[in-house]
Amino acid sequence: MAPRKQQEIFDATLRLVAEKGYDGLTVEGVAERSGVNKTTIYRWWPSKAALLGAALVESDLLGFDTPDTGSLRGDLVALVEGVRRLLTEPPGSDIAVAALGAAVRHPELDARRFFADRFAREREIFERAVGRGELAATVDPMLVVDLLAGAVWMRSVFRGLRLDDDFATDAVAALLDGI
Amino acid sequence: MAPRKQQEIFDATLRLVAEKGYDGLTVEGVAERSGVNKTTIYRWWPSKAALLGAALVESDLLGFDTPDTGSLRGDLVALVEGVRRLLTEPPGSDIAVAALGAAVRHPELDARRFFADRFAREREIFERAVGRGELAATVDPMLVVDLLAGAVWMRSVFRGLRLDDDFATDAVAALLDGI
Repeated sequence: MAPRKQQEIFDATLRLVAEKGYDGLTVEGVAERSGVNKTTIYRWWPSKAALLGAALVESDLLGFDTPDTGSLRGDLVALVEGVRRLLTEPPGSDIAVAALGAAVRHPELDARRFFADRFAREREIFERAVGRGELAATVDPMLVVDLLAGAVWMRSVFRGLRLDDDFATDAVAALLDGI
Repeated sequence: MAPRKQQEIFDATLRLVAEKGYDGLTVEGVAERSGVNKTTIYRWWPSKAALLGAALVESDLLGFDTPDTGSLRGDLVALVEGVRRLLTEPPGSDIAVAALGAAVRHPELDARRFFADRFAREREIFERAVGRGELAATVDPMLVVDLLAGAVWMRSVFRGLRLDDDFATDAVAALLDGI
């Protein structure tokens, strides 16, 4: 399938899940919106769970560029800012909250791929920091990512609170400097 | 209403949401399971969202005792262990994941009350630590809670990974000692 067509299908998938939730997402609806035959979609992705799983990882709508600011502190602040934008600014926020919320209840929708894919790219931040002598090689990068990204989920999605402008800086400082 | 009867209604509410999800939860179902008339339930809670919101905060099933181990480190490790148990051990895990997952998609189900109630009780940990001279009064307790509890959500619910035995100790050490 042409990459552009594939992106249109992913785009339709993510926008539909944001509008109608996972229960309202259907391959038929994606076919209609993207102008692609239903059987073509099924040939590539055997179920709506597989389609949404692929869209979460491969769609440009949720694109992720690993920050590279020159310092561990700068990279981690940019990482937290990226998660904040993803979870609070449309269309990403509606998509992420609907799709990742659904993944909690529908194990067949494999959100682990989404998080594993991001983490594979986030690792670079820590490799560079170790190379620059900013970080001990013994620090577990996944723990750092989970503390920071988790804090954004808690504050914005679960508590429903607005994040202060200083949130990213403060969260990163708590980790880098200790409390 | 007698407190015991109220706990039975909350118990039925939380078990039903764990079994059937928020969409499958009905006041009729709760009435049937708890042996209480539907109109009685509606007299106390005007909707299923209100009923579930109250159950999340007031049910003994999700009971929360503020840790008091004598040190900030010990209290925070106990706090993380408590969130780990809540999110990974039945029946709490099925309830918490179903109900809090639903809250993300259904703003009328006010999960903020659940998190606000917990936080009001978690504050004591930080007040005692400041009193003992273990923690600067300038540290934001909610940031600490969000970093730690968020990490458990990320690792166990979103990544679907088992938490190492050292997870709580490592997460707290990252914050107290810096990375």
